[in-house]
Amino acid sequence: MGKVNIGVIGVGRIGSMHARNLKYQVSGVNVLGVADVFEKAAQKVANELVIPIAEKDYRVLLENKDIDAVVICSSTDTHAQIISEAAQAGKHIFCEKPIALDVEKIDQAIAAVKKTGVKLQVGFNRRFDPSFKKAKDLVAKGTIGTPHLVRITSRDPEPPPISYIKVSGGIFLDMMIHDFDMARYLLDQEVVELMAVGSCLVDPAIGEAGDIDTAIVTLKYEGGAWGTIDNSRKAVYGYDQRIEIFGSEGCVIVGNPRPTEVIINSAKNTISDKPLYFFIERYQEAYLAEMKEFIKCVQENKEPSVGGFDGKISVQMGYAAKESLTMGSFVKIGN
Amino acid sequence: MGKVNIGVIGVGRIGSMHARNLKYQVSGVNVLGVADVFEKAAQKVANELVIPIAEKDYRVLLENKDIDAVVICSSTDTHAQIISEAAQAGKHIFCEKPIALDVEKIDQAIAAVKKTGVKLQVGFNRRFDPSFKKAKDLVAKGTIGTPHLVRITSRDPEPPPISYIKVSGGIFLDMMIHDFDMARYLLDQEVVELMAVGSCLVDPAIGEAGDIDTAIVTLKYEGGAWGTIDNSRKAVYGYDQRIEIFGSEGCVIVGNPRPTEVIINSAKNTISDKPLYFFIERYQEAYLAEMKEFIKCVQENKEPSVGGFDGKISVQMGYAAKESLTMGSFVKIGN
Amino acid sequence: MGKVNIGVIGVGRIGSMHARNLKYQVSGVNVLGVADVFEKAAQKVANELVIPIAEKDYRVLLENKDIDAVVICSSTDTHAQIISEAAQAGKHIFCEKPIALDVEKIDQAIAAVKKTGVKLQVGFNRRFDPSFKKAKDLVAKGTIGTPHLVRITSRDPEPPPISYIKVSGGIFLDMMIHDFDMARYLLDQEVVELMAVGSCLVDPAIGEAGDIDTAIVTLKYEGGAWGTIDNSRKAVYGYDQRIEIFGSEGCVIVGNPRPTEVIINSAKNTISDKPLYFFIERYQEAYLAEMKEFIKCVQENKEPSVGGFDGKISVQMGYAAKESLTMGSFVKIGN
Amino acid sequence: MGKVNIGVIGVGRIGSMHARNLKYQVSGVNVLGVADVFEKAAQKVANELVIPIAEKDYRVLLENKDIDAVVICSSTDTHAQIISEAAQAGKHIFCEKPIALDVEKIDQAIAAVKKTGVKLQVGFNRRFDPSFKKAKDLVAKGTIGTPHLVRITSRDPEPPPISYIKVSGGIFLDMMIHDFDMARYLLDQEVVELMAVGSCLVDPAIGEAGDIDTAIVTLKYEGGAWGTIDNSRKAVYGYDQRIEIFGSEGCVIVGNPRPTEVIINSAKNTISDKPLYFFIERYQEAYLAEMKEFIKCVQENKEPSVGGFDGKISVQMGYAAKESLTMGSFVKIGN
Repeated sequence: MGKVNIGVIGVGRIGSMHARNLKYQVSGVNVLGVADVFEKAAQKVANELVIPIAEKDYRVLLENKDIDAVVICSSTDTHAQIISEAAQAGKHIFCEKPIALDVEKIDQAIAAVKKTGVKLQVGFNRRFDPSFKKAKDLVAKGTIGTPHLVRITSRDPEPPPISYIKVSGGIFLDMMIHDFDMARYLLDQEVVELMAVGSCLVDPAIGEAGDIDTAIVTLKYEGGAWGTIDNSRKAVYGYDQRIEIFGSEGCVIVGNPRPTEVIINSAKNTISDKPLYFFIERYQEAYLAEMKEFIKCVQENKEPSVGGFDGKISVQMGYAAKESLTMGSFVKIGN
Repeated sequence: MGKVNIGVIGVGRIGSMHARNLKYQVSGVNVLGVADVFEKAAQKVANELVIPIAEKDYRVLLENKDIDAVVICSSTDTHAQIISEAAQAGKHIFCEKPIALDVEKIDQAIAAVKKTGVKLQVGFNRRFDPSFKKAKDLVAKGTIGTPHLVRITSRDPEPPPISYIKVSGGIFLDMMIHDFDMARYLLDQEVVELMAVGSCLVDPAIGEAGDIDTAIVTLKYEGGAWGTIDNSRKAVYGYDQRIEIFGSEGCVIVGNPRPTEVIINSAKNTISDKPLYFFIERYQEAYLAEMKEFIKCVQENKEPSVGGFDGKISVQMGYAAKESLTMGSFVKIGN
Repeated sequence: MGKVNIGVIGVGRIGSMHARNLKYQVSGVNVLGVADVFEKAAQKVANELVIPIAEKDYRVLLENKDIDAVVICSSTDTHAQIISEAAQAGKHIFCEKPIALDVEKIDQAIAAVKKTGVKLQVGFNRRFDPSFKKAKDLVAKGTIGTPHLVRITSRDPEPPPISYIKVSGGIFLDMMIHDFDMARYLLDQEVVELMAVGSCLVDPAIGEAGDIDTAIVTLKYEGGAWGTIDNSRKAVYGYDQRIEIFGSEGCVIVGNPRPTEVIINSAKNTISDKPLYFFIERYQEAYLAEMKEFIKCVQENKEPSVGGFDGKISVQMGYAAKESLTMGSFVKIGN
Repeated sequence: MGKVNIGVIGVGRIGSMHARNLKYQVSGVNVLGVADVFEKAAQKVANELVIPIAEKDYRVLLENKDIDAVVICSSTDTHAQIISEAAQAGKHIFCEKPIALDVEKIDQAIAAVKKTGVKLQVGFNRRFDPSFKKAKDLVAKGTIGTPHLVRITSRDPEPPPISYIKVSGGIFLDMMIHDFDMARYLLDQEVVELMAVGSCLVDPAIGEAGDIDTAIVTLKYEGGAWGTIDNSRKAVYGYDQRIEIFGSEGCVIVGNPRPTEVIINSAKNTISDKPLYFFIERYQEAYLAEMKEFIKCVQENKEPSVGGFDGKISVQMGYAAKESLTMGSFVKIGN
C-alpha cells in the first residue's frame, strides 16, 4: 500500500509527541488530522505540525474516508469506546495503555476489533526500548539459560497530581501496569499468580486519595520462575527503570542511561550524571520505534507484537495486585 | 591489657582462615592453640602457623588458663554447647553463625554468656565489608533520607554438597540467614514480618533433600519500609552480593567488586572481569575486620556490635521464612 | 524574521542527513532546494524529503531570491569557491569542514564572508556533542581549576578508501582536524606549537598512498597547558572518541556512549556493548544541534560560535603537524 | 632449600612495609634482622615485628652467615654500594628503585651481582599489580593483535617535599621511572627513542628547586608502536594510575580501583568513590606479590623477572627524557 493516513485522537503531551514523530520521523505516513476535546489544543498542534484537519470531535476523523488508522491518546475512560467505533469505521488502531480500567469494556473493545479485523496495537512503549528489547532477545535465544528470577525496578521522579491519582485506578493500574507487561514480555511467559505489598511512604495526600505510593509485587511465572517488581512514586534522582533476568547460565542486567558520558574526578568524589528525568526523555527512542512498528504492521498487514490481549492481561494483573494487597495473600491472574 | 591469647576451635576452611588472620594480620594477639575433632587438621594448621597447642578436644583449650578467648568454627550443632562451656570457663567468644538451629539452645547459650559477662560476637562477616558498611553508615547519617525500599541480592556460585543441605536447616537457615542479618543491619531496624516464596530450579537433588534452591523473601520493617531478598544456590558467574537502599532523598547501591580493573574492547563487545568467586575471596577484608573488632572489644572491654541477640533474630527469621513458605502468607518474626 | 529558506549543496551522506534534519527536526525552516553534481542524487533526496527544487548546479540555488542560507556539503575542493559565491549572493552559510586545504583559499573565502556580512558556520559537529559540550562548560566554569593536561582519543572504526586518502590532505587534515578544533574548543585557548609523530601501522596501502594511519600529536597551549591527541584509522571495536581534561582542581573525562545499557554476566566474563559504530551514530545529536544553532544565528542575527577563523586555524594546525612529522621537532602554529 | 633468612636494610615507610609483608604474609621466610641509619627506627620495627636483630650498620647483616638475602630500602644514593657489598657477601638482593642515579654506578653494581651469581630483583612493584599484569598477559597472548599505541597515566595525589625533589633526580628519575619500566613491561619491547615536554604548573617552588611537575613523554618502540606517558605531581582526586594498550585487534584499558563499590544516586548527581589515595593503598597486593616472587626465585634458584638490566634501562630513559626536555627533540635511549 501507499502512504498510511493517520488521525491522532487526543493531543496532550503523549498525543502531540506521537503526532510529531509520525509527521517527521516515520516514513510512509501522512498525518491527516488531529482531534481533541480541547479544540484549541487540536488547532495548536495542527498548526505547528502543518496537519490539515483539527477537530474537537474524534468522530470526524473516523468518518473521514482517507484516514487509514488512528492513534488514540485521549483520556483513559474514552479508550474502549473509541476503539470500538474506530474498529467499526474500519480504522487500524494504536491505543495508549490502558485500554480501560474495566475488564468487560476491554473485552468489548477487543471483540469489536476482532470482528472487523483491523489492527490493534497497545502503547506498551517500554517493549521498544533498545536495551530492554536486547535483554528480552538474549533471554529468548538462551543466553542466560532457563530464567529463574526476574527483577523490575520502576520508580518515577515525582508523583502525578492528586487529582489524577483519584481517577487513575491507583498505582497498580496507572504505573505498575507497564511493569506487569514488561514482566510478561521479558520471559514471553504468563504470570500465574502474584502477591502485592505496599504502603504510603512518599506523600500522605496520596494515601488520603485512597492510593499507595510504594509497592513491591512478587510474581510466579507459569514456567516456574519468580519475579519482583518495585515501584515508588518518587525517586529524587530521576526516572529509575532497570531490569534484571537471572537464569541457569547467567544474568542480563539493564541499567539507566544517562544524558552524557561525563565523569568528574574531584577532590571529594567521582561524579557522573543522574538518570534521564522521566519517560519522555528515557523512552524517546521507544516511542518512535513503537510507532514505526505500528505503521509497518498496517502497511504489511501484520499483527502488532503487542495487542489487545496484552492490554487486557496487564489490567487483570493490576486488579489481582489490588486484591492481593487487601487480602495479604497470593492472587491468581485472570479468571 | 596485654596480648590477647586465643584458641581456635574447629580449623576447617573458615577456622584456619581466622587462625591465619589472627596470627599474621591482627596485632595484640597470640594464637596459643587450635582444636579440631580431626586431630590431624589441628596439627597441620598448628604446624603451618607455628601455634604451640594442637588438640582434638576443645576442652583442653577451655581449661588452659592462659587462653583469654576462643574462636568457634566447629560444626553448627556444637556451637551452643561450646559457647556455654566457654562462657563458664570465662573465655570471650567469637562464634561462627548460626549459634544453633534450635532457638531454645540459642537462648541457653546467650544466658550462659550473660551470666558470666564474657563477650560474644557472632560471625556475621558481611557487616564488616567496607562497601556494605559504608552503605549502612550513609543510611544512618541520613544521606538517602527515610528508607523506603531495601533490596539484597545474594547468590552463591555453586550449591553446597547435598549431604550438607540435609543437615544445614535449609536455604533460609544456612544461606539467607546472612541476608536477614544484613537487612536488619542496613536500616538498624527490626523486620516485623516476612513472606517467603521459592522452589527448586537449580538441581532436583536439592529438592529431593527437602530444600529449595531459589527463593525470594519480602520483608516489612518496623519503620514502614519494605525489603526483598533473593537467593539462588547457583550463579554461574560467581558470587553475587549486591544491596540497594532507596529512600526519600536518594538511593545507595553496592555492586560486586571484581578481581581486576581490566576492560577489553574487542571487535565483538566490551569485556570485563566476572565477580570474585566466593566468600573467601569476596569477604577477605571483612573476615579480617570482624576479627580485629572482636579483639578490640576484648582488649577495651567493649560490647561487640553484633552479638547473641543478632544471632538469635536471624535464626528466628529463617524459621519464619520456612513457615511462610509452607503457609503462603506473611509470618511475624519471633514471639 | 519568519521561516529560514534553505538550500543544501551536495547531498551525499552528510548533506542528505543535514537536509533530513532541517526538514524534520529543526523548526522555523523550509528546505527549498538541493543541488548535487550527481543530479540523480539531488532528485532522489528531493523526492524523499518533498523538497521543491533539485538541481545539478548549485548556482541555481544561489540565484534563487527566496533562499536565505545554504548548507555546503559538496566535495572539499569546492567549499571555498561556493562560500565566496554564496556570500556574494547574500546567503548565510553553513559549510562542512575543511573550508579548503589551501590556507590562501580559506582567507579569500573568509574575506568574501566578511565583506558581505553573512553568517558563516563551519561544521565542527563535535563541539555540539552533549558530553563534550558539558566537559567544556565545566572547564569554563572552573570545576577543574587551571587546566594542565588535555587528552583527545580519536580512532575511526575503519580507514576510508585509498582513493579518498590520496586527495584528503592526509590524516592531519582529514581526520585530526576535528581533534585540533576540539583541543582549542575545550580550553577556549589557542595552541601555540605542536609536535607530531606517527607511522603506517594499519595498512601498508595507506603508506603507499603517502599517508600514515597512526599518529600522536603533542600540543602546547598558550596558557601553559599540554595536550595529546592520538589517532588511528582503525579501531576494530568501533568509533573511539574520548577526551580528558586534567587540572589543578580535578579531572573531567568523557567516555564512549554505547547503543544499549545491557550487561551480561556469563560464566566466563562480564559483557557490555561496544561503542557506537561511526560518526553518523555517535554524533547524531551533535549534527542536529549544530544545525539548530546555525538556524538560530540566522534568525536572531547572531554570530555562530564556530566560524571561519576556527576553520582556518584547524587547517593550519594540520599543516603544522605535517611539517612537524617531517622535521621531527615542534612547529609553531600559523604564521 | 628451607626457610629463606632475610635482612631488611632501611626501614622507612617502604622498608617496614616489606618487613611486615615478609614476616606475616610470605611463607618460607624468616626475617632475621633489620638495619637503619636511624637506629631507633630499626629497633622500633624489630620490636613490633618480633625480629631478633636490629642494627644501625647494614654491614652487620651482610656479615651474618645465617642471612640468605637482603631487601634494600635505604636512601637511593646508598643502593649501588650496598648491592655490591651484598653480592660480595653472597646475599641475594631485592633493591628498591632506582639502583642509582649514576649509570656507571649501576653498571658496577650489576657487574658485582653478575660476578657472584646472586639474584637481583629491582622493586618495580607495578609489574605485580594484578590489573596491569593481566593487561600485559593479554597483550602477550595476542588478544589485541599487534600493539600500535600505549598510554600510561601516572599522577600523584601530592608532590613530595621540596627537599626530596632537590636530590631525587627530578620527575623523570623519581616518578616517571616507574612508567618507563611499565612501558617496556607492557609490550615486552624496548623503547628506542623518546621526546619529553613539560613545565612547572603545580607549584612554583618545584620549579625553583630545578624540577618540573607536569610532563608528557612520547615513546617510540622498537616494534614500531608509539606510546605516551603523562605525569603530574598533583591530582587532587588521588593516585591516578591507568594504562591503555591499543592494537590491531582491540584495546585493553586498566582503570583505577576504588576503596568501595558504593554508588549514591542523589537529587543532584551520581556519586562514587574517588581512587585510592597513594601507592601504599593502590599497590598493596603488588608489593606483596613482588616479595613472593623474590623469595620464590631465591628458593627455586630462578632469575627474577625484573632485574638489574631493567633497573638500568629505566634510569637511562629518565636521562634521555631530561635531555629531550632541554633539546626539544627526540633522544635515543642508552648509548
